[in-house]
Amino acid sequence: MSAYKVTFTTEDGKVARTEIPSGTLLVEAARLAGVDIGQPCGGQGRCGRCIVQVIEGKVRRRSELRLTNEDVAAGYALACQTIAEGDLTISVPKQETVSRRLTSDRTAAEVRVPDRYDFHWSQTIRRYNLTLTPPSMDDQTDDWSRLTTALRIQANVPRVSGSVAFLQKIGGILREGDWRVHVILDTVADEPEAPARLIDLRPGHYEDSDPLWAAAIDIGTTTVSLWLVDLVNGQVKAQVAEYNGQIVRGEDVISRIIYASKDSGGEELQSRVLDTINGLLDIASKRVKATPASIIKATVVGNSTMIHLLLKIPPVSIRLSPFITAVNNPPPTTAHELGLNLAHDATVDCLPGVASYVGADITAGVLSSGTDASDEITLFLDVGTNGEIVLGNRDWLVTCACSAGPAFEGAGVYNGMRATDGAIEEIWINSETFEPAYRVIGASKPRGICGSGLISLMAEMFLTGLLDKGGNINLSAKTNRVRRGEHGSEYVVAWATETASDEDIVIRHVDVDNLLRAKAAIYAGYHVLAEQVGVPMESIQKMLVGGSFGKYINVEKAVQIGLLPDMPWERFEFLGNTAVKGAYYALLDRQSRERVQAIAERMTYIELSADNTFYEAFMSAMFLPHTDLARFPSVTSILESR
Amino acid sequence: MSAYKVTFTTEDGKVARTEIPSGTLLVEAARLAGVDIGQPCGGQGRCGRCIVQVIEGKVRRRSELRLTNEDVAAGYALACQTIAEGDLTISVPKQETVSRRLTSDRTAAEVRVPDRYDFHWSQTIRRYNLTLTPPSMDDQTDDWSRLTTALRIQANVPRVSGSVAFLQKIGGILREGDWRVHVILDTVADEPEAPARLIDLRPGHYEDSDPLWAAAIDIGTTTVSLWLVDLVNGQVKAQVAEYNGQIVRGEDVISRIIYASKDSGGEELQSRVLDTINGLLDIASKRVKATPASIIKATVVGNSTMIHLLLKIPPVSIRLSPFITAVNNPPPTTAHELGLNLAHDATVDCLPGVASYVGADITAGVLSSGTDASDEITLFLDVGTNGEIVLGNRDWLVTCACSAGPAFEGAGVYNGMRATDGAIEEIWINSETFEPAYRVIGASKPRGICGSGLISLMAEMFLTGLLDKGGNINLSAKTNRVRRGEHGSEYVVAWATETASDEDIVIRHVDVDNLLRAKAAIYAGYHVLAEQVGVPMESIQKMLVGGSFGKYINVEKAVQIGLLPDMPWERFEFLGNTAVKGAYYALLDRQSRERVQAIAERMTYIELSADNTFYEAFMSAMFLPHTDLARFPSVTSILESR
Repeated sequence: MSAYKVTFTTEDGKVARTEIPSGTLLVEAARLAGVDIGQPCGGQGRCGRCIVQVIEGKVRRRSELRLTNEDVAAGYALACQTIAEGDLTISVPKQETVSRRLTSDRTAAEVRVPDRYDFHWSQTIRRYNLTLTPPSMDDQTDDWSRLTTALRIQANVPRVSGSVAFLQKIGGILREGDWRVHVILDTVADEPEAPARLIDLRPGHYEDSDPLWAAAIDIGTTTVSLWLVDLVNGQVKAQVAEYNGQIVRGEDVISRIIYASKDSGGEELQSRVLDTINGLLDIASKRVKATPASIIKATVVGNSTMIHLLLKIPPVSIRLSPFITAVNNPPPTTAHELGLNLAHDATVDCLPGVASYVGADITAGVLSSGTDASDEITLFLDVGTNGEIVLGNRDWLVTCACSAGPAFEGAGVYNGMRATDGAIEEIWINSETFEPAYRVIGASKPRGICGSGLISLMAEMFLTGLLDKGGNINLSAKTNRVRRGEHGSEYVVAWATETASDEDIVIRHVDVDNLLRAKAAIYAGYHVLAEQVGVPMESIQKMLVGGSFGKYINVEKAVQIGLLPDMPWERFEFLGNTAVKGAYYALLDRQSRERVQAIAERMTYIELSADNTFYEAFMSAMFLPHTDLARFPSVTSILESR
Repeated sequence: MSAYKVTFTTEDGKVARTEIPSGTLLVEAARLAGVDIGQPCGGQGRCGRCIVQVIEGKVRRRSELRLTNEDVAAGYALACQTIAEGDLTISVPKQETVSRRLTSDRTAAEVRVPDRYDFHWSQTIRRYNLTLTPPSMDDQTDDWSRLTTALRIQANVPRVSGSVAFLQKIGGILREGDWRVHVILDTVADEPEAPARLIDLRPGHYEDSDPLWAAAIDIGTTTVSLWLVDLVNGQVKAQVAEYNGQIVRGEDVISRIIYASKDSGGEELQSRVLDTINGLLDIASKRVKATPASIIKATVVGNSTMIHLLLKIPPVSIRLSPFITAVNNPPPTTAHELGLNLAHDATVDCLPGVASYVGADITAGVLSSGTDASDEITLFLDVGTNGEIVLGNRDWLVTCACSAGPAFEGAGVYNGMRATDGAIEEIWINSETFEPAYRVIGASKPRGICGSGLISLMAEMFLTGLLDKGGNINLSAKTNRVRRGEHGSEYVVAWATETASDEDIVIRHVDVDNLLRAKAAIYAGYHVLAEQVGVPMESIQKMLVGGSFGKYINVEKAVQIGLLPDMPWERFEFLGNTAVKGAYYALLDRQSRERVQAIAERMTYIELSADNTFYEAFMSAMFLPHTDLARFPSVTSILESR
């Protein structure tokens, strides 16, 4: 048995060497070299905490779980799942670095500008430098006519419209710029005779390299995301997100709709979300050393209730049968009309939705995920507080929504919380001792369990026998972590001594029940949709998962509880926030904007609540992973192997 | 000499009889019958206070001064100027009634709707009854699409635009009306492909007789006038006026411009005039039992500074050479954008002006006076705080403005005041005793002298020798009313015992000087304008006088001081507020709206301040009536006859 030499270098500069036999796991080699590598999941290759980078030498990876193709190419490997096959030089990152890497938002990575992006060709926004003749006693032309004449002659723009606010500043800007100015306007690209709308007038001439700021905004029920874009080159220059300030008035759309129908409730909810967006505009524009007032265009997506609340349109009929929106396709408006702190006359374009429960976040998601252009039959699933589902390809698109409820966002679960600092986001349970290991966001003491943590917890409890098929906690399991509490049976994830609150973090039977309902609603949703259009689940060639849910979810665990369908893992793709990305595409490119319009018009909405088969499918899915185990062969084989 | 029987009946029911010889004046007959008829002017037929109505019998009128043709036809006569030629029955109105009649606004009389007015043909406003299919689970179309589809199918309106505010109410109104509603929209009449703009949505169906309210608004520097119009039949249903709330921040446009350039001064001035207009909207709509929110359209005129201040556009460049407005032809806007309390999306149309000192009040005045359509060479003079002059006919139009200053509105004159309660509005001076008689607005004790009173006073003082040609007060006149005061020579119009303030009301030499400057500016204005375009004054065939000034002015007196040109009286026509009337025409009729646009474009503005001859003409006009007496033959003949 040949012996390999292994050198470990740590981020703080420590170097350690050892010799090992062939076939040794890297964690074992590290132990021999006296280097500490954390393994919260007990070496099962599931937590990703033992990640190391192979700088030199040959290894064999048993599992690439939690690693991207780029990671593998860069030499990253899970120490607990990787075997030495030669002399090695290995770099061990600090635990904090690993922690950051695992919990950071993947979409915060650089966004690629679409290949074909060309400012002049893609945009309806134009800017022009103008040099005016100053007025004199012989030429007392008013400022507005002087400007519009220059636009006609110098920029070949025959017709323009301007707001009162534009007129309010024209005199000052013309004189401040000493009659050299530049204008920014929004044109109707395909109707040259339609008047162009003046957005801004600025003193002096611009340089071609000067940025032209615009924003793509996704208003989630829970989180508002904003990308700040330089339209000149199309690049995303800042990505920011913040909780929707409306949360204090209800965690889901239904409670917001109810609140909005109270006296001045609609007004309050509008001003809360405007405050959130305006705050994000401040932060994002500061980051690029600009001001919100320099932002001249925005696209906005969100579910239909969020768009209604943003526009202060009463959403009451969304909630009541037959579930009607006031508007699916709001007309374009301006920052001022809406109360957004962009340039006063900035174009604000709310993308079109389809129905009360399939909003612009979904049409934008279909756009950015490419579902509408796919050759393959694709299931696009966006899980937030609701689950919206789109099925189709380049030829057809159907959609439905199912009320999953906020359980996967941590609400309605005793120790549930949003995916923020202190949230347990992944859990592993030892199948013999029933002792858990967990990972906490922000590496602080745990405060609760977020959606991905709950999925992971349910899956582990089910696979270790702590939960039965029906979601009942096995009180006869040989561990003090299982107990009968005040509110029924429960399992202790973290003892009071480990937690931020000095109280046990538990999951109760009733929590499991809520989670079962949520996953059953989503599963039933895409299943019934697929059935209704005659597409068996196995013929689905691609499964795209979007939404903030999709950023943290572990596909293996989600399949194990029966939330995602049991299909080959390579068919899954996790896309993160597809909504804001779609808003970005539509912001950049008028053809994408037309495409999202076409998506909204093409998509057939199917109302599940009108359908008995949905209820049946929902009831059948109220089990772990499902009444019909044949639908989950990979889970069945795990169960059988234990 | 035959004797006639005369019966007097008074308004309070008293009946008195007498017999008189043929040729007796009616005042004498009244004295004989014991009926009191006031004669403030001493029986010179100038004050109009002795007006009576001849119910039966034949009279001969020596003078019809102060009587309209309608008055004469109705039997009205000046008792001091009318001779009995048969048995008579005469009705004597109360003094208050006479007072009201003399001081009431002539334009408050019923306004004639233009003959050709036809709602559908003249208006761009449309209203349609719609009956929608209610939504159901089988038809989840959003409210907006449901409405626009109905508009397309039921009303043949293919494209519409709606504001966010419209969307905010659509759901509520559709359901309140149980899917029977009517919409009001503003169309672009000559561009059927241009989207119609939705103004209002109301529950239920309308009846053809239901009014459709709109407002014509004239923002004067001193007074804001508003006419409330039912667009269905074109009738003016309420006329209201109020002082412009900006007055407290300056009496003339220049001081307003200066105030507007201070911190938040522009904001304050805008909100002051908005308050004034909104107050008028309240009063006018109450009078017709409607609400301001039911008013769906407004046209607005005013001088360029007033329009800038209304729109909160900084007017600073209006005041500084080369005197440039930010905009002469503001784009249409909405009530909400402006802050007017009409229907939220009501069309607000500010009519076009021509230059810094020739605004939309003048283009509207040209429209309503018909100057632009006249076969005769017409001089249109609008005297407010400024004097604006238009000369021309159907083929050509030139215009200029001269800064008359506010003297004729009572400002800059020691005992000057606006034409309101307590203002002396007409004065007669006995040429032997130099004792004055005067008429006071509101029949209260005098508080001061308004513009028409000042004109009348100057004329009388000049004709009686109390003023010389140069405007100097004749201190050697044999009356204690002429004296050397603290501030130079002065004439006492009313002794302290007669006045509201218990102080003498006087006119001082310096006041006369200010008035001379004002009248000289106006005279020089139209004179230089006429000269510049090669039209001698005597070839002017019509002299139209508009503005609040024009409502009270006595042409005879105005000629005597050299303010109006000495031409045959039948060439003069006093039109009252031509500006609000023009706004009314443009409100009613899209062809009139186009015509006012054409007027603004056709009118050539001549800047007098750039012209030396103006200064010379001004200096020559600084005399009573003028340096060149040959220009005032009628005045010369009066002077010679005395």
